[in-house]
Amino acid sequence: MTRVLILGGGGMVGQKLAKRLQSEGLGQDASPDITLFDMAFPPDGVTGVTKKTGNITDQATIGALAAARFDVIFHLAAIVSGEAETNFEKGWAVNMMSMWHLLEALRAEHDASGRQWMPRLVFTSSIAVFGAPFPEKIGDEFLNAPQTSYGAQKAICELMVTDFSRKGYIDGLSLRLPTICVRPGKPNLAASSFFSGIIREPLNGVEAILPVPDTVRHWHASPRSAAGFLTHAATLDTDRLEGRRALSLPGISCTVAEQIEALRRAAGQKTVDLIRSAPDPAIMKIVAGWPRNFDPQRAIGLGFQAESSFDEIIDVYIKEDLPKATA
Amino acid sequence: MTRVLILGGGGMVGQKLAKRLQSEGLGQDASPDITLFDMAFPPDGVTGVTKKTGNITDQATIGALAAARFDVIFHLAAIVSGEAETNFEKGWAVNMMSMWHLLEALRAEHDASGRQWMPRLVFTSSIAVFGAPFPEKIGDEFLNAPQTSYGAQKAICELMVTDFSRKGYIDGLSLRLPTICVRPGKPNLAASSFFSGIIREPLNGVEAILPVPDTVRHWHASPRSAAGFLTHAATLDTDRLEGRRALSLPGISCTVAEQIEALRRAAGQKTVDLIRSAPDPAIMKIVAGWPRNFDPQRAIGLGFQAESSFDEIIDVYIKEDLPKATA
Repeated sequence: MTRVLILGGGGMVGQKLAKRLQSEGLGQDASPDITLFDMAFPPDGVTGVTKKTGNITDQATIGALAAARFDVIFHLAAIVSGEAETNFEKGWAVNMMSMWHLLEALRAEHDASGRQWMPRLVFTSSIAVFGAPFPEKIGDEFLNAPQTSYGAQKAICELMVTDFSRKGYIDGLSLRLPTICVRPGKPNLAASSFFSGIIREPLNGVEAILPVPDTVRHWHASPRSAAGFLTHAATLDTDRLEGRRALSLPGISCTVAEQIEALRRAAGQKTVDLIRSAPDPAIMKIVAGWPRNFDPQRAIGLGFQAESSFDEIIDVYIKEDLPKATA
Repeated sequence: MTRVLILGGGGMVGQKLAKRLQSEGLGQDASPDITLFDMAFPPDGVTGVTKKTGNITDQATIGALAAARFDVIFHLAAIVSGEAETNFEKGWAVNMMSMWHLLEALRAEHDASGRQWMPRLVFTSSIAVFGAPFPEKIGDEFLNAPQTSYGAQKAICELMVTDFSRKGYIDGLSLRLPTICVRPGKPNLAASSFFSGIIREPLNGVEAILPVPDTVRHWHASPRSAAGFLTHAATLDTDRLEGRRALSLPGISCTVAEQIEALRRAAGQKTVDLIRSAPDPAIMKIVAGWPRNFDPQRAIGLGFQAESSFDEIIDVYIKEDLPKATA
């Protein structure tokens, strides 16, 4: 039986991933054994899994997780971009140093196993590893010049995952997730939170704040695609990566105005009227340094799949998450 | 008076840099106050400077260096590429973790100064941050996909230096030095050591081993250019970097065969006959993943200068270092 650990398993994507693993299995294994690790779990969250609470910055905790020798480790735990920008120490401690301690703990277990045990590590990186100015579409050979601490931390983790993998201590890869949209639940501290808010809140009959001009263009995929990216990465033949183990993933490039038009098509003008513009210079500044569009040929060639329109992204939310919100 | 600290000041480039600062000054200051820090110093090394010995992996030592609040810090200390590849732990401890501790110590001093003191930090990165496959010439927007631990560590340090600078704790930049050639003195553990050896040893009447085919193309600058890059970086207006604080520097792209032809022009066939070919698969594998040519437009635009031919590089060695070797 495949033993799977999801670090950050209490978060939205972690929960989606656990449910997907339960419903679709992982590779040849129809019912993998799933352990979630996080600081806390939602009360109405996924069931039928093992849940462990703890802090990923604690080295003893990391050591114990490594010692359990899971077959596949999904690393989704992070301080989000907005908080990493305002709390410099916490961002580096959680987003960078805990990855270092995790990799060192995995290396120690690999050595202790007589170099037999080598886990698959799937790390959720971010398109925040890129910084402006950008080409029209960001290709697979464009430099990482992040303009946030969050982006720098993610880029550093990518480099570590690649080097520990090259040396054969782990078999890892990093996925630069598009901004996940529509996130169910409440707004979070990510500077990107509004991209979901302007769709989710109106669909739930609640006013939403738009802190940027509607000309802002960004790169999106649904929570369902995120879970799909992660399970695909967990079973991918990593030899096909040819040593470049960080991938920009497929997504949808659209402006906020196009997002709003898709919302209008899905739910009508009355719903769209719930979006209120209230420019926030701090968020505008962060978002101005973010990517707008990609040409992720490697990931597409490796079989990663996202939605084909923002309408489809809204549809995923309505089918998967809206019923619960209104139940 | 400008107070300058050179970490790794006992090494070849550190010594060249100290001598250049003594002879040419730094910016408006004709005679800066120079402190060298290293694990050991050459007995016949530069005089008229303060020398401190210690280990950069020791946090208390780093803290004391930060507390001295130098105006300019050159960070040249590193485990070289070959050793970082064979001694994984030591490479990460020295090349990555000591940079982290240095930056954290500088940030603490910056805060303790009421955010008044902000040192210029010039970090010597490397073209090893790049990994094959390459374009014909590596441009300023090409990705960092290192294929050695050394390259990964340098790329990570670049990201840290940029983010600590963006936040205003330091005013730093990273210079991706070409392979420095011709290094005076003895061979070192760098996989690139032979590039100097095949010129230096024959010029001193000693046999040299060539461990790769003479078709290998690589990217070079002299020790004199290295010292020039560093002093130029110490006084550069970093606003001109527009947030991208890691620079690929100018150099000479040539094959080993072209190096040998230049040696023949400078010293004749009898000297060239001292080069003995002895292919070493381990070195060939490392070197195969290294860059061959660059188009470093940003650095050139910012006023960084290197030699214009490999003949000139040999000439620098003959004028600056060969007399001492044969004295």
